[in-house]
Amino acid sequence: MIPRYSRPEMVAIFAPENKLRIWLEVELAAAEAMAGLGQLPADEVASLRAKVEQAGERLIDTARVDEIEAVTRHDVIAFLTHVEEICGAEARHLHLGMTSSDLLDTTLAIQLAQAADLLLADLDALLEVLRRRAFEHKDTLTIGRSHGIHAEPVTFGLKLAAAYAEFDRNRTRLRTARAEIATCAISGAVGSFANIDPRVEEAVAARFGLVPEPVSTQVIPRDRHAAFVAALAVIASSIERLATEIRHLQRTEVGEAEEFFHAGQKGSSAMPHKRNPVLSENLTGLARLIRAAVVPALENVALWHERDISHSSVERVAFPDMLVLADFALARLTSMMDRLVVYPERMQRNLDMTHGLLFSQRVLIALTSSGLPRQQAYVLVQRNAMRAWEEGLSLLDLLQADEEVTARLPAADLPALFDMSYHTKHVDTIFARVFGEASAD
Amino acid sequence: MIPRYSRPEMVAIFAPENKLRIWLEVELAAAEAMAGLGQLPADEVASLRAKVEQAGERLIDTARVDEIEAVTRHDVIAFLTHVEEICGAEARHLHLGMTSSDLLDTTLAIQLAQAADLLLADLDALLEVLRRRAFEHKDTLTIGRSHGIHAEPVTFGLKLAAAYAEFDRNRTRLRTARAEIATCAISGAVGSFANIDPRVEEAVAARFGLVPEPVSTQVIPRDRHAAFVAALAVIASSIERLATEIRHLQRTEVGEAEEFFHAGQKGSSAMPHKRNPVLSENLTGLARLIRAAVVPALENVALWHERDISHSSVERVAFPDMLVLADFALARLTSMMDRLVVYPERMQRNLDMTHGLLFSQRVLIALTSSGLPRQQAYVLVQRNAMRAWEEGLSLLDLLQADEEVTARLPAADLPALFDMSYHTKHVDTIFARVFGEASAD
Amino acid sequence: MIPRYSRPEMVAIFAPENKLRIWLEVELAAAEAMAGLGQLPADEVASLRAKVEQAGERLIDTARVDEIEAVTRHDVIAFLTHVEEICGAEARHLHLGMTSSDLLDTTLAIQLAQAADLLLADLDALLEVLRRRAFEHKDTLTIGRSHGIHAEPVTFGLKLAAAYAEFDRNRTRLRTARAEIATCAISGAVGSFANIDPRVEEAVAARFGLVPEPVSTQVIPRDRHAAFVAALAVIASSIERLATEIRHLQRTEVGEAEEFFHAGQKGSSAMPHKRNPVLSENLTGLARLIRAAVVPALENVALWHERDISHSSVERVAFPDMLVLADFALARLTSMMDRLVVYPERMQRNLDMTHGLLFSQRVLIALTSSGLPRQQAYVLVQRNAMRAWEEGLSLLDLLQADEEVTARLPAADLPALFDMSYHTKHVDTIFARVFGEASAD
Amino acid sequence: MIPRYSRPEMVAIFAPENKLRIWLEVELAAAEAMAGLGQLPADEVASLRAKVEQAGERLIDTARVDEIEAVTRHDVIAFLTHVEEICGAEARHLHLGMTSSDLLDTTLAIQLAQAADLLLADLDALLEVLRRRAFEHKDTLTIGRSHGIHAEPVTFGLKLAAAYAEFDRNRTRLRTARAEIATCAISGAVGSFANIDPRVEEAVAARFGLVPEPVSTQVIPRDRHAAFVAALAVIASSIERLATEIRHLQRTEVGEAEEFFHAGQKGSSAMPHKRNPVLSENLTGLARLIRAAVVPALENVALWHERDISHSSVERVAFPDMLVLADFALARLTSMMDRLVVYPERMQRNLDMTHGLLFSQRVLIALTSSGLPRQQAYVLVQRNAMRAWEEGLSLLDLLQADEEVTARLPAADLPALFDMSYHTKHVDTIFARVFGEASAD
Repeated sequence: MIPRYSRPEMVAIFAPENKLRIWLEVELAAAEAMAGLGQLPADEVASLRAKVEQAGERLIDTARVDEIEAVTRHDVIAFLTHVEEICGAEARHLHLGMTSSDLLDTTLAIQLAQAADLLLADLDALLEVLRRRAFEHKDTLTIGRSHGIHAEPVTFGLKLAAAYAEFDRNRTRLRTARAEIATCAISGAVGSFANIDPRVEEAVAARFGLVPEPVSTQVIPRDRHAAFVAALAVIASSIERLATEIRHLQRTEVGEAEEFFHAGQKGSSAMPHKRNPVLSENLTGLARLIRAAVVPALENVALWHERDISHSSVERVAFPDMLVLADFALARLTSMMDRLVVYPERMQRNLDMTHGLLFSQRVLIALTSSGLPRQQAYVLVQRNAMRAWEEGLSLLDLLQADEEVTARLPAADLPALFDMSYHTKHVDTIFARVFGEASAD
Repeated sequence: MIPRYSRPEMVAIFAPENKLRIWLEVELAAAEAMAGLGQLPADEVASLRAKVEQAGERLIDTARVDEIEAVTRHDVIAFLTHVEEICGAEARHLHLGMTSSDLLDTTLAIQLAQAADLLLADLDALLEVLRRRAFEHKDTLTIGRSHGIHAEPVTFGLKLAAAYAEFDRNRTRLRTARAEIATCAISGAVGSFANIDPRVEEAVAARFGLVPEPVSTQVIPRDRHAAFVAALAVIASSIERLATEIRHLQRTEVGEAEEFFHAGQKGSSAMPHKRNPVLSENLTGLARLIRAAVVPALENVALWHERDISHSSVERVAFPDMLVLADFALARLTSMMDRLVVYPERMQRNLDMTHGLLFSQRVLIALTSSGLPRQQAYVLVQRNAMRAWEEGLSLLDLLQADEEVTARLPAADLPALFDMSYHTKHVDTIFARVFGEASAD
Repeated sequence: MIPRYSRPEMVAIFAPENKLRIWLEVELAAAEAMAGLGQLPADEVASLRAKVEQAGERLIDTARVDEIEAVTRHDVIAFLTHVEEICGAEARHLHLGMTSSDLLDTTLAIQLAQAADLLLADLDALLEVLRRRAFEHKDTLTIGRSHGIHAEPVTFGLKLAAAYAEFDRNRTRLRTARAEIATCAISGAVGSFANIDPRVEEAVAARFGLVPEPVSTQVIPRDRHAAFVAALAVIASSIERLATEIRHLQRTEVGEAEEFFHAGQKGSSAMPHKRNPVLSENLTGLARLIRAAVVPALENVALWHERDISHSSVERVAFPDMLVLADFALARLTSMMDRLVVYPERMQRNLDMTHGLLFSQRVLIALTSSGLPRQQAYVLVQRNAMRAWEEGLSLLDLLQADEEVTARLPAADLPALFDMSYHTKHVDTIFARVFGEASAD
Repeated sequence: MIPRYSRPEMVAIFAPENKLRIWLEVELAAAEAMAGLGQLPADEVASLRAKVEQAGERLIDTARVDEIEAVTRHDVIAFLTHVEEICGAEARHLHLGMTSSDLLDTTLAIQLAQAADLLLADLDALLEVLRRRAFEHKDTLTIGRSHGIHAEPVTFGLKLAAAYAEFDRNRTRLRTARAEIATCAISGAVGSFANIDPRVEEAVAARFGLVPEPVSTQVIPRDRHAAFVAALAVIASSIERLATEIRHLQRTEVGEAEEFFHAGQKGSSAMPHKRNPVLSENLTGLARLIRAAVVPALENVALWHERDISHSSVERVAFPDMLVLADFALARLTSMMDRLVVYPERMQRNLDMTHGLLFSQRVLIALTSSGLPRQQAYVLVQRNAMRAWEEGLSLLDLLQADEEVTARLPAADLPALFDMSYHTKHVDTIFARVFGEASAD
């Protein structure tokens, strides 16, 4: 992924150095397991471990491994040769009975689990920001919209609570997805354990917090990876949803919220209102990119027979890319929501722009409750509503001046129907559902 | 979906009649909840329930509802009018404070849950067949292949156990997906509960085995549906994988298994070997169709503000289609695997076609263990292996005639290395992992 | 496709009756070509043609063909049997040397060409509407927006001209796509012409306005169909783009245009402003559905060896569906644009809402041209612009009262800079580019 | 894209240096056009051009531009500042009346056109190889397969001719796609030409072989780019198809062709037959990756109003990636096909493995032509065919020994029916169609 959309921690997970480090640990763990089962001389394996620890970062020499690979044309053999160069003959106890796939697939599992942990932390940070801002605006009135058209009032906190609940679901999905891919395969050619004891696989799995793959066929089955990628694709769509909301709110005509601008930051011209929601637009595009991995990941599942290598190029490219992008996008979204500038006055102005029409349904109910047949009530409301809309007059004023209305509902009682709190009376209930009872205080 | 790929039970779930039935039950459940809360006259609601039960299927009159809708241009109003026509004035207690979305989204949740239950039953049937056939062929030797090239022996039962494990994971994914979409929203316009008590939603949810949606915004959020569709897309890819395996096995040159042919069924010509794997090819295409829903489902997530209706057409078309296809495909796969004709003799013939080369790695290990340096051992093995392959001779015979080999390994000991059971010694272990210890008997 | 999103003409193209009609014509054309080449008795083929014409619609009896297929389990054989039942023994001259694929693939080509012609007519109708409305609003001023933020003025006609140009490109793409799939294959098993003369293929192709497929392998290669579907996917995205524009314009806060409402049509409540852009939202969803076919169509290309049948289910389902949807969506878009209600006053009001700020760039240029360094000019403009925006005052008034400004630009000259026509002076140029010189009158 | 799948020439097109070079040329071309129109002092612009040429590569200093951008936070302004630093005050004539989008979109068009030209050269090289190998194997007999099952004979040259025809179509598609994106937009904010003369756009377009975008809206419309990406996606699927063919042919049981192996190259074990089709498997994965760009490219079309920036991140990442991958994949495919090892003897062996059954259809026709009713002829053929298949006997021998057969067809006449040339008699015809009459010599 290009640096512009990358953060170092996620990049490091997929860096060659991290791969070599995991390779070394997996190979050592396998050898130690064999030693524990009496299948290798325990002292030599212990000595190898000591040498490895002594060598430290000298073993993580990607340049030297690449150099050897240029000769052997095989990355795993190059790595083992490199270890032998530094640690000596005891390195021959590594990789016994294993195939390259055992090493590669288990390492990928560990990398994906590391990446998932990072994304879970990203989600935690986002959730924390959404929670804080939701409570900050729990009572900030704003118009609810369906189809882009004003409907009835909600609060801005409710919008954020909905986003919180969505990303909280995404957190659960990501945890499930992490469990999907956190398996270990050390089962040898075509997964038959012909040359390796299944207990070695169990021991290595335990060492890395993985579950042994019940039946691998040289490779860990790719339905696991497809499910993992699919979970990220859903997260990407949620990112797009919240970004789209901000893009709408920042429109010139809406103006209810705005991405943070640095004091000295200029818009694209001399126009001070020209502050563009470039972060949320960027997040929209990043969501498209992240989602794009879902189709090749699904196409990767149907490997031929016990395994083919068609999945490999997709995973080399699309997996790191989508994870780096997801990490970047979640962090950008978090920062954007953290510093989002909210304009409650503009929200109020927008609520007022329909001159009270958003209460018309409640007036209708009140007239009906007074005994007026619904059709007649509808006519009374609509004729005033139409005038209010077309002439820009207050619906309340018009109703109070309409004798047919006041014959049913005293003019003095009408203002009570134009009451925002009627629409927000269950905000606490919803907050308690989303954030838990305790947190609603 | 076209009848060719449809089964009646799944079609029925998405039939207009089922929708009307669920609508009626949801509306009644809401009214009864309100009555229970003292918000509606309990006797009138009870009387309405009685009338509904008396009317029975007369209420499920899609033609009449369509007729009314042609006038009202609103499906929910048409339905309520129809109920009023039959059940009388008490029908006015239905739909109070609710929006159409409350009804539509909760109904969709119930339909999707019903569909998921049907697919879970489909998966159970498939798993049962895969288990039975796996045990039947637990010890049927066959060549394991990587890259389409012969590698080392496995058993046909192991292939089926891998498929079982994959569909067992799919079962778990589908149960998770079912939980994703089994939520209830009865929260009124923009989800604010302004005109309806949240306890009504809770009661309706309980009635249908759903969970109340913590924060709906007139609609149930569509990340839930995207996650549901994504789970089906993974299942489709697993269907494609098993279908692809069968297509490979049925190739003329492989011939290890074959889709069942009716006694009188003809191939496409006079050639008796011309039996085409048309079911598995068809399943491959169906998998592509099912998967195709995942992109629009992800695009559906980012609704504008509290809701827009752009998701609706996708859901009307793609959801029933993909579920009907998944049901059909799982049933077809189950039947195909149930009756799959397996040819163990051909499997043995294919094992033999490399003249024992598949044991060359084990000979290499034996020579190395005898103290010969690996490079020298490799040369000894390879020169015999090359001759075996190129001249079609038995590798065992060649090795027994090679004095440099027999100097290390007595000719009489060599046959023991050409031992299939070496490769199958852990089949029971793997079966116990997949099917549980008990079932391995 | 469900009737809700279907129009009869496109549905008819993919109806079984149309398929049988094409089958009959292709088979007859092949027999007549063979007769012309002296490979069949000309008189008998002529007699067969006469009998077919006499039988007329009796031959298009899908029920009878289905009945026979239930026995023969082969659709083409069932059809040929049916023709023989009605036309007698001369029907034996049909299908000689042909495979089912010859008939099916050539028929699909004809159906897709018919469908493309229908869509081309749909596009023509849309283009006509867009042209008319573009000229109607050639000079209707409206704000141009980048990032959803007011930028500089354009005209509403320019927006429509851009849409016209885009759909005109789509017309070209569709014509290219039509040419892609309009090929004929009558080449027998594995496409070798072993049992059929290549000249027969040429004759049939000519009869139906098709091109002979240069090298078919029993099937017409599926890269053609993938390219066809991809063209439709691009069209779908263009539909989404225009629909998205309308959804934005109809927002309560924007209100510049609105989908047509029937006189008696009600919004969802008593609020007269609650008119939802449901057509354009629906088109957004339909675009997602149409696009969804592109992935399976691409996956269909890599058939195994000379052919497999995995593509068939995708084509049976997704091809008619996407074409029916595209036809419906284009017609709906055309009708929507035809009757779109445009509000020029609201456009003017929105232009005014930034108090003249949209001319600030031009003031800046004028100050710079007067010799003031750009940075100083910027400071002058910005301090007035900020006040205009924050206090809601007219930028022109403020500038005229700013002595540092008027020292450079006489107050009397300033109004000339606040001139919309500066921004619209090239509208005619652009219209001439899009619609041609002549049409610009 | 990772270096593993990158070739330098395509990488260079999307390198920052190439971008700066194009920026400089576009800006200069615009200034020169303005000078030509008398809108800028011609001598100063000429002097600027001279300074630019004198500065040469010093102007392409990405590090310095990045340094300035870190301050200005705007890439285009940073670049212009850098030019001014080196070339002095006359650089102020650059970018007049232009927006960043004018520069960025026109530059992207030029880069995409360069990339398309490179891919066209790649396709030419591939076509040349396919043509050569097709003629080399024009008469190499091999079995044609439908559904993976032996059907009737073709030649290996025919398979390659089909691939040639498919990539020739892809060449046409790519040329069309190149024309789609080769447009120039120099139209200023929201595309209104308020501050720039349309003739400047025309002049710049002409300079770079582009067409002026008829109506841009600050950006070049993204349906063009979607169509471009879709064409590449189809090419990717064709790559997958040919790669899949090779993977099949290299299977152990088929063995008809094989990717080239270096003399010293080892398979994964001591087994000499273990040569894996890793190139074609890799190409299969690369095809999935390339295709994955089609969905985000389609989602990029529906920009909001005149423009938003959501498309940008997709284009920064996915466009270079897919083009680098396509270049790499085409080159790999070309090299693989160039050096493909073909085994005509194995093809013959596979032809023989059905004991003459592939001629059974022709025997059937001969019996029918002799006057025997088709059903009786079928019984005669099938009973011999079944025995041949099940007992591994020669169908010809069996037929010659069957008196009911020889009563109709003299035993001496039967061998003539088992004639491969019957199936290959139109190979020249097909080659002439694909490669032209002349080349068939």
